[in-house]
Amino acid sequence: MAKPKITVGISARHLHISQEHLDILFGKGHQLHPFKDLGQPGQYACEERVDLVTEKGSFKQVRILGPVRPNTQVELALTDAMKLGLKVPVRDSGDHRDAPGLTLVGPKGEVKLGTGVIAACRHIHMTPADAAEFGVKDKQFVSVKIGDAERCLIFDKVLVRVHENFALEMHVDTDEGNACGAKTGDFAEIVG
Amino acid sequence: MAKPKITVGISARHLHISQEHLDILFGKGHQLHPFKDLGQPGQYACEERVDLVTEKGSFKQVRILGPVRPNTQVELALTDAMKLGLKVPVRDSGDHRDAPGLTLVGPKGEVKLGTGVIAACRHIHMTPADAAEFGVKDKQFVSVKIGDAERCLIFDKVLVRVHENFALEMHVDTDEGNACGAKTGDFAEIVG
Repeated sequence: MAKPKITVGISARHLHISQEHLDILFGKGHQLHPFKDLGQPGQYACEERVDLVTEKGSFKQVRILGPVRPNTQVELALTDAMKLGLKVPVRDSGDHRDAPGLTLVGPKGEVKLGTGVIAACRHIHMTPADAAEFGVKDKQFVSVKIGDAERCLIFDKVLVRVHENFALEMHVDTDEGNACGAKTGDFAEIVG
Repeated sequence: MAKPKITVGISARHLHISQEHLDILFGKGHQLHPFKDLGQPGQYACEERVDLVTEKGSFKQVRILGPVRPNTQVELALTDAMKLGLKVPVRDSGDHRDAPGLTLVGPKGEVKLGTGVIAACRHIHMTPADAAEFGVKDKQFVSVKIGDAERCLIFDKVLVRVHENFALEMHVDTDEGNACGAKTGDFAEIVG
Protein backbone atom coordinates (compact mmCIF):
# COMPACT_ATOMS: atom_id res chain seq x y z
CA MET A 1 0.00 0.00 0.00
CA ALA A 2 1.24 3.50 -0.73
CA LYS A 3 2.55 5.33 2.31
CA PRO A 4 0.66 8.43 3.47
CA LYS A 5 1.94 11.70 1.97
CA ILE A 6 3.84 14.02 4.30
CA THR A 7 2.82 17.63 3.76
CA VAL A 8 5.44 20.34 4.22
CA GLY A 9 4.54 23.31 6.42
CA ILE A 10 6.90 26.28 6.21
CA SER A 11 6.91 28.31 9.40
CA ALA A 12 7.53 32.03 9.03
CA ARG A 13 8.83 33.82 12.13
CA HIS A 14 6.20 33.77 14.88
CA LEU A 15 5.78 33.51 18.61
CA HIS A 16 3.92 31.53 21.23
CA ILE A 17 2.87 33.52 24.26
CA SER A 18 2.17 33.00 27.95
CA GLN A 19 -1.00 34.46 29.45
CA GLU A 20 1.18 36.60 31.74
CA HIS A 21 2.91 38.23 28.77
CA LEU A 22 -0.33 38.47 26.79
CA ASP A 23 -1.82 40.46 29.69
CA ILE A 24 1.06 42.94 29.55
CA LEU A 25 1.09 43.29 25.75
CA PHE A 26 -2.67 43.41 25.09
CA GLY A 27 -4.27 44.19 28.49
CA LYS A 28 -5.27 42.19 31.57
CA GLY A 29 -7.29 39.05 30.81
CA HIS A 30 -6.91 39.38 27.04
CA GLN A 31 -8.03 36.32 25.03
CA LEU A 32 -6.37 35.39 21.73
CA HIS A 33 -8.52 35.72 18.62
CA PRO A 34 -8.08 32.81 16.17
CA PHE A 35 -7.44 34.00 12.63
CA LYS A 36 -6.65 30.77 10.79
CA ASP A 37 -6.34 27.09 11.77
CA LEU A 38 -2.90 25.55 11.38
CA GLY A 39 -1.96 22.06 10.18
CA GLN A 40 -1.82 20.67 13.72
CA PRO A 41 -5.25 20.17 15.39
CA GLY A 42 -6.02 22.83 18.02
CA GLN A 43 -3.24 25.17 16.85
CA TYR A 44 -4.12 28.45 15.18
CA ALA A 45 -2.66 31.71 13.94
CA CYS A 46 -4.06 34.69 15.85
CA GLU A 47 -5.18 38.14 14.87
CA GLU A 48 -2.81 39.46 17.54
CA ARG A 49 0.60 40.62 16.35
CA VAL A 50 3.55 42.19 18.14
CA ASP A 51 6.82 43.84 17.17
CA LEU A 52 10.11 42.04 17.89
CA VAL A 53 12.80 44.55 18.80
CA THR A 54 16.53 44.41 19.55
CA GLU A 55 19.25 47.05 19.54
CA LYS A 56 20.19 45.99 16.00
CA GLY A 57 16.80 45.86 14.31
CA SER A 58 13.15 44.90 14.45
CA PHE A 59 10.37 42.96 12.78
CA LYS A 60 6.99 44.65 12.82
CA GLN A 61 3.67 42.91 13.43
CA VAL A 62 4.81 39.33 13.90
CA ARG A 63 1.96 36.90 14.40
CA ILE A 64 1.19 35.09 17.65
CA LEU A 65 0.22 31.40 17.38
CA GLY A 66 -2.32 30.09 19.87
CA PRO A 67 -3.34 28.74 22.24
CA VAL A 68 -1.33 30.33 25.08
CA ARG A 69 1.54 28.27 26.46
CA PRO A 70 3.31 28.13 29.84
CA ASN A 71 6.34 29.95 28.39
CA THR A 72 6.70 32.57 25.68
CA GLN A 73 8.80 31.35 22.74
CA VAL A 74 9.88 33.30 19.66
CA GLU A 75 10.77 31.23 16.57
CA LEU A 76 13.03 32.84 13.97
CA ALA A 77 14.84 31.63 10.89
CA LEU A 78 18.60 32.20 11.24
CA THR A 79 18.37 34.85 8.49
CA ASP A 80 15.89 36.70 10.71
CA ALA A 81 18.13 36.28 13.76
CA MET A 82 21.06 37.82 11.89
CA LYS A 83 18.95 40.85 11.00
CA LEU A 84 18.25 41.33 14.72
CA GLY A 85 21.91 40.75 15.64
CA LEU A 86 21.01 37.68 17.69
CA LYS A 87 22.81 34.36 17.90
CA VAL A 88 20.00 31.86 18.38
CA PRO A 89 20.40 28.12 18.93
CA VAL A 90 18.58 25.45 16.92
CA ARG A 91 16.25 23.86 19.46
CA ASP A 92 13.17 21.70 19.84
CA SER A 93 10.13 23.63 20.96
CA GLY A 94 10.28 24.31 24.70
CA ASP A 95 14.06 23.86 24.97
CA HIS A 96 15.47 27.31 25.69
CA ARG A 97 19.07 26.40 26.62
CA ASP A 98 21.37 29.28 25.55
CA ALA A 99 18.43 31.06 23.89
CA PRO A 100 18.71 34.85 23.91
CA GLY A 101 15.84 37.27 24.54
CA LEU A 102 14.46 40.36 22.83
CA THR A 103 11.77 42.95 23.47
CA LEU A 104 8.13 42.32 22.52
CA VAL A 105 6.12 45.45 21.84
CA GLY A 106 2.33 45.23 21.89
CA PRO A 107 -0.44 47.83 21.83
CA LYS A 108 -0.69 48.01 25.64
CA GLY A 109 2.83 47.34 26.84
CA GLU A 110 6.27 45.83 26.38
CA VAL A 111 7.94 42.64 27.59
CA LYS A 112 11.71 42.28 27.83
CA LEU A 113 12.27 38.57 27.32
CA GLY A 114 15.44 37.26 28.97
CA THR A 115 15.36 34.06 26.90
CA GLY A 116 13.08 32.02 24.61
CA VAL A 117 14.26 33.03 21.13
CA ILE A 118 15.13 29.92 19.09
CA ALA A 119 15.44 28.59 15.56
CA ALA A 120 13.08 25.62 15.55
CA CYS A 121 14.57 22.20 14.89
CA ARG A 122 12.88 20.66 11.84
CA HIS A 123 10.55 17.80 12.69
CA ILE A 124 7.69 15.63 11.45
CA HIS A 125 4.41 15.35 13.34
CA MET A 126 2.52 12.09 12.89
CA THR A 127 -0.07 9.84 14.49
CA PRO A 128 0.75 6.37 15.87
CA ALA A 129 -0.98 4.92 12.77
CA ASP A 130 1.30 6.99 10.47
CA ALA A 131 4.33 5.89 12.48
CA ALA A 132 3.35 2.25 12.00
CA GLU A 133 3.02 2.82 8.22
CA PHE A 134 6.48 4.40 8.04
CA GLY A 135 8.04 1.95 10.51
CA VAL A 136 9.34 4.72 12.77
CA LYS A 137 8.98 5.63 16.46
CA ASP A 138 8.56 8.79 18.50
CA LYS A 139 11.87 10.70 18.87
CA GLN A 140 13.56 8.72 16.09
CA PHE A 141 15.64 10.65 13.56
CA VAL A 142 15.03 10.13 9.84
CA SER A 143 16.37 11.58 6.56
CA VAL A 144 13.86 13.42 4.44
CA LYS A 145 13.94 14.59 0.83
CA ILE A 146 12.14 17.83 -0.12
CA GLY A 147 12.39 20.15 -3.02
CA ASP A 148 11.94 20.93 -6.66
CA ALA A 149 14.12 19.76 -9.50
CA GLU A 150 16.51 22.68 -9.12
CA ARG A 151 17.03 22.75 -5.37
CA CYS A 152 16.30 19.30 -3.97
CA LEU A 153 17.63 18.76 -0.46
CA ILE A 154 17.96 15.80 1.85
CA PHE A 155 17.46 16.88 5.44
CA ASP A 156 19.52 14.62 7.67
CA LYS A 157 18.47 14.13 11.25
CA VAL A 158 14.79 15.10 11.18
CA LEU A 159 13.04 14.43 14.47
CA VAL A 160 9.88 12.30 14.38
CA ARG A 161 7.18 13.28 16.89
CA VAL A 162 4.32 10.82 17.34
CA HIS A 163 1.06 11.67 19.13
CA GLU A 164 -2.54 10.72 18.53
CA ASN A 165 -3.51 14.41 18.35
CA PHE A 166 -0.97 15.20 15.61
CA ALA A 167 -1.59 15.52 11.87
CA LEU A 168 1.00 14.23 9.40
CA GLU A 169 3.14 17.26 8.58
CA MET A 170 6.81 18.22 8.39
CA HIS A 171 7.74 21.64 9.75
CA VAL A 172 10.70 23.61 8.41
CA ASP A 173 11.50 27.31 8.66
CA THR A 174 11.73 29.84 5.83
CA ASP A 175 15.49 29.38 5.36
CA GLU A 176 15.05 25.63 5.00
CA GLY A 177 12.01 26.03 2.74
CA ASN A 178 13.80 28.52 0.51
CA ALA A 179 16.97 26.45 0.40
CA CYS A 180 15.00 23.65 -1.27
CA GLY A 181 12.54 25.82 -3.21
CA ALA A 182 9.59 24.34 -1.28
CA LYS A 183 6.23 25.87 -0.49
CA THR A 184 3.69 24.98 2.18
CA GLY A 185 1.64 22.09 0.80
CA ASP A 186 4.53 20.46 -1.05
CA PHE A 187 5.40 16.90 -0.07
CA ALA A 188 8.33 15.42 1.83
CA GLU A 189 9.61 11.87 1.46
CA ILE A 190 11.36 9.82 4.17
CA VAL A 191 14.43 8.36 2.46
CA GLY A 192 16.37 6.82 5.32
CA MET B 1 45.54 9.88 -0.24
CA ALA B 2 43.02 12.12 1.45
CA LYS B 3 40.90 14.14 -0.95
CA PRO B 4 41.31 17.92 -0.93
CA LYS B 5 38.93 19.75 1.44
CA ILE B 6 36.11 21.73 -0.17
CA THR B 7 35.64 25.07 1.55
CA VAL B 8 32.12 26.49 1.80
CA GLY B 9 31.61 30.09 0.71
CA ILE B 10 28.28 31.64 1.69
CA SER B 11 27.23 34.40 -0.68
CA ALA B 12 25.20 37.22 0.80
CA ARG B 13 23.08 39.22 -1.66
CA HIS B 14 25.32 41.09 -4.08
CA LEU B 15 25.56 42.22 -7.68
CA HIS B 16 27.88 42.10 -10.66
CA ILE B 17 27.84 45.20 -12.80
CA SER B 18 28.44 46.22 -16.42
CA GLN B 19 30.66 49.23 -17.15
CA GLU B 20 27.66 50.92 -18.78
CA HIS B 21 25.62 50.68 -15.59
CA LEU B 22 28.62 51.55 -13.41
CA ASP B 23 28.98 54.78 -15.41
CA ILE B 24 25.36 55.71 -14.69
CA LEU B 25 25.46 54.78 -11.00
CA PHE B 26 28.88 56.19 -10.08
CA GLY B 27 29.79 58.57 -12.91
CA LYS B 28 31.31 58.25 -16.37
CA GLY B 29 34.47 56.12 -16.52
CA HIS B 30 34.23 55.04 -12.88
CA GLN B 31 36.61 52.23 -11.86
CA LEU B 32 35.69 49.70 -9.17
CA HIS B 33 37.73 49.86 -5.96
CA PRO B 34 38.65 46.41 -4.60
CA PHE B 35 37.82 46.05 -0.91
CA LYS B 36 38.53 42.37 -0.25
CA ASP B 37 39.66 39.40 -2.35
CA LEU B 38 37.15 36.57 -2.72
CA GLY B 39 37.77 32.82 -2.78
CA GLN B 40 37.97 32.69 -6.57
CA PRO B 41 41.20 34.16 -8.07
CA GLY B 42 40.65 37.59 -9.64
CA GLN B 43 37.27 38.12 -8.00
CA TYR B 44 36.87 40.77 -5.32
CA ALA B 45 34.29 42.59 -3.22
CA CYS B 46 34.27 46.31 -4.00
CA GLU B 47 33.95 49.41 -1.87
CA GLU B 48 31.08 50.45 -4.15
CA ARG B 49 27.57 49.70 -2.92
CA VAL B 50 24.13 50.43 -4.33
CA ASP B 51 20.54 50.24 -3.11
CA LEU B 52 18.22 47.59 -4.59
CA VAL B 53 14.70 48.97 -4.85
CA THR B 54 11.30 47.58 -5.86
CA GLU B 55 7.76 48.77 -5.20
CA LYS B 56 7.56 46.37 -2.26
CA GLY B 57 10.83 47.06 -0.49
CA SER B 58 14.53 47.75 -0.66
CA PHE B 59 17.95 46.67 0.50
CA LYS B 60 20.37 49.47 1.24
CA GLN B 61 24.06 49.50 0.35
CA VAL B 62 24.42 46.12 -1.31
CA ARG B 63 27.96 45.33 -2.35
CA ILE B 64 29.18 45.12 -5.94
CA LEU B 65 31.57 42.25 -6.77
CA GLY B 66 34.24 42.92 -9.38
CA PRO B 67 35.58 42.95 -11.96
CA VAL B 68 32.92 44.40 -14.28
CA ARG B 69 31.00 41.93 -16.45
CA PRO B 70 29.23 42.17 -19.82
CA ASN B 71 25.82 42.06 -18.09
CA THR B 72 24.63 43.31 -14.72
CA GLN B 73 23.40 40.48 -12.48
CA VAL B 74 21.83 40.74 -9.02
CA GLU B 75 22.03 37.63 -6.82
CA LEU B 76 19.51 37.29 -4.00
CA ALA B 77 18.54 34.53 -1.61
CA LEU B 78 14.86 33.63 -2.00
CA THR B 79 14.19 35.11 1.46
CA ASP B 80 15.57 38.41 0.09
CA ALA B 81 13.48 38.12 -3.07
CA MET B 82 10.31 37.68 -1.02
CA LYS B 83 11.08 40.84 0.93
CA LEU B 84 11.28 42.72 -2.39
CA GLY B 85 8.11 41.05 -3.69
CA LEU B 86 10.04 39.42 -6.54
CA LYS B 87 9.70 35.91 -7.90
CA VAL B 88 13.24 35.04 -8.97
CA PRO B 89 14.34 31.84 -10.69
CA VAL B 90 17.22 29.63 -9.52
CA ARG B 91 19.82 30.00 -12.26
CA ASP B 92 23.46 29.50 -13.09
CA SER B 93 25.39 32.73 -13.32
CA GLY B 94 24.74 34.44 -16.67
CA ASP B 95 21.44 32.62 -17.32
CA HIS B 96 18.72 35.26 -17.00
CA ARG B 97 15.73 33.34 -18.42
CA ASP B 98 12.55 34.54 -16.66
CA ALA B 99 14.63 36.72 -14.34
CA PRO B 100 12.87 39.90 -13.16
CA GLY B 101 14.47 43.32 -12.80
CA LEU B 102 14.59 45.98 -10.10
CA THR B 103 15.98 49.48 -9.69
CA LEU B 104 19.61 50.10 -8.75
CA VAL B 105 20.24 53.39 -6.96
CA GLY B 106 23.80 54.72 -6.82
CA PRO B 107 25.29 58.05 -5.73
CA LYS B 108 25.19 59.52 -9.27
CA GLY B 109 22.15 57.89 -10.86
CA GLU B 110 19.65 55.08 -11.15
CA VAL B 111 19.33 52.07 -13.44
CA LYS B 112 16.01 50.32 -14.03
CA LEU B 113 17.03 46.74 -14.77
CA GLY B 114 14.56 44.85 -16.97
CA THR B 115 16.05 41.50 -16.01
CA GLY B 116 19.09 39.93 -14.33
CA VAL B 117 17.84 39.22 -10.80
CA ILE B 118 18.43 35.55 -9.92
CA ALA B 119 18.91 33.16 -7.03
CA ALA B 120 22.26 31.54 -7.79
CA CYS B 121 22.32 27.82 -8.35
CA ARG B 122 24.67 26.18 -5.83
CA HIS B 123 27.91 24.94 -7.37
CA ILE B 124 31.47 23.83 -6.70
CA HIS B 125 34.45 25.51 -8.33
CA MET B 126 37.50 23.32 -8.80
CA THR B 127 40.68 22.94 -10.86
CA PRO B 128 41.23 20.06 -13.31
CA ALA B 129 43.59 18.54 -10.72
CA ASP B 130 40.85 18.67 -8.06
CA ALA B 131 38.38 17.14 -10.53
CA ALA B 132 40.75 14.25 -11.13
CA GLU B 133 41.09 13.68 -7.37
CA PHE B 134 37.31 13.59 -6.94
CA GLY B 135 36.70 11.62 -10.15
CA VAL B 136 34.25 14.22 -11.51
CA LYS B 137 33.97 16.29 -14.67
CA ASP B 138 32.94 19.84 -15.58
CA LYS B 139 29.12 20.28 -15.55
CA GLN B 140 28.56 17.03 -13.68
CA PHE B 141 26.06 17.05 -10.80
CA VAL B 142 27.07 15.66 -7.41
CA SER B 143 25.49 15.33 -3.95
CA VAL B 144 27.19 17.25 -1.18
CA LYS B 145 26.90 17.10 2.60
CA ILE B 146 27.31 20.28 4.63
CA GLY B 147 26.34 21.26 8.11
CA ASP B 148 26.69 20.96 11.82
CA ALA B 149 25.35 18.19 14.00
CA GLU B 150 21.97 19.87 14.40
CA ARG B 151 21.21 20.90 10.83
CA CYS B 152 23.17 18.68 8.47
CA LEU B 153 21.93 18.78 4.87
CA ILE B 154 22.67 16.84 1.74
CA PHE B 155 22.44 19.11 -1.28
CA ASP B 156 21.31 17.05 -4.25
CA LYS B 157 22.24 18.17 -7.72
CA VAL B 158 25.21 20.44 -7.10
CA LEU B 159 26.86 21.62 -10.30
CA VAL B 160 30.62 21.03 -10.68
CA ARG B 161 32.52 23.74 -12.55
CA VAL B 162 36.08 22.92 -13.56
CA HIS B 163 38.60 25.53 -14.74
CA GLU B 164 42.31 25.97 -14.21
CA ASN B 165 41.73 29.46 -12.80
CA PHE B 166 39.27 28.27 -10.15
CA ALA B 167 39.96 27.58 -6.48
CA LEU B 168 38.27 24.66 -4.74
CA GLU B 169 35.16 26.15 -3.16
CA MET B 170 31.43 25.44 -2.92
CA HIS B 171 29.12 28.43 -3.19
CA VAL B 172 25.71 28.52 -1.51
CA ASP B 173 23.49 31.46 -0.62
CA THR B 174 22.45 32.65 2.84
CA ASP B 175 19.24 30.60 2.87
CA GLU B 176 21.16 27.45 2.06
CA GLY B 177 23.93 28.30 4.54
CA ASN B 178 21.45 29.02 7.32
CA ALA B 179 19.39 25.93 6.53
CA CYS B 180 22.43 23.78 7.38
CA GLY B 181 23.94 26.01 10.06
CA ALA B 182 27.09 26.52 7.98
CA LYS B 183 29.51 29.43 7.94
CA THR B 184 32.00 30.54 5.30
CA GLY B 185 35.13 28.44 5.83
CA ASP B 186 33.27 25.29 6.88
CA PHE B 187 33.81 22.19 4.78
CA ALA B 188 31.62 20.35 2.29
CA GLU B 189 31.90 16.67 1.43
CA ILE B 190 30.94 15.08 -1.89
CA VAL B 191 28.82 12.04 -0.94
CA GLY B 192 27.48 10.86 -4.26
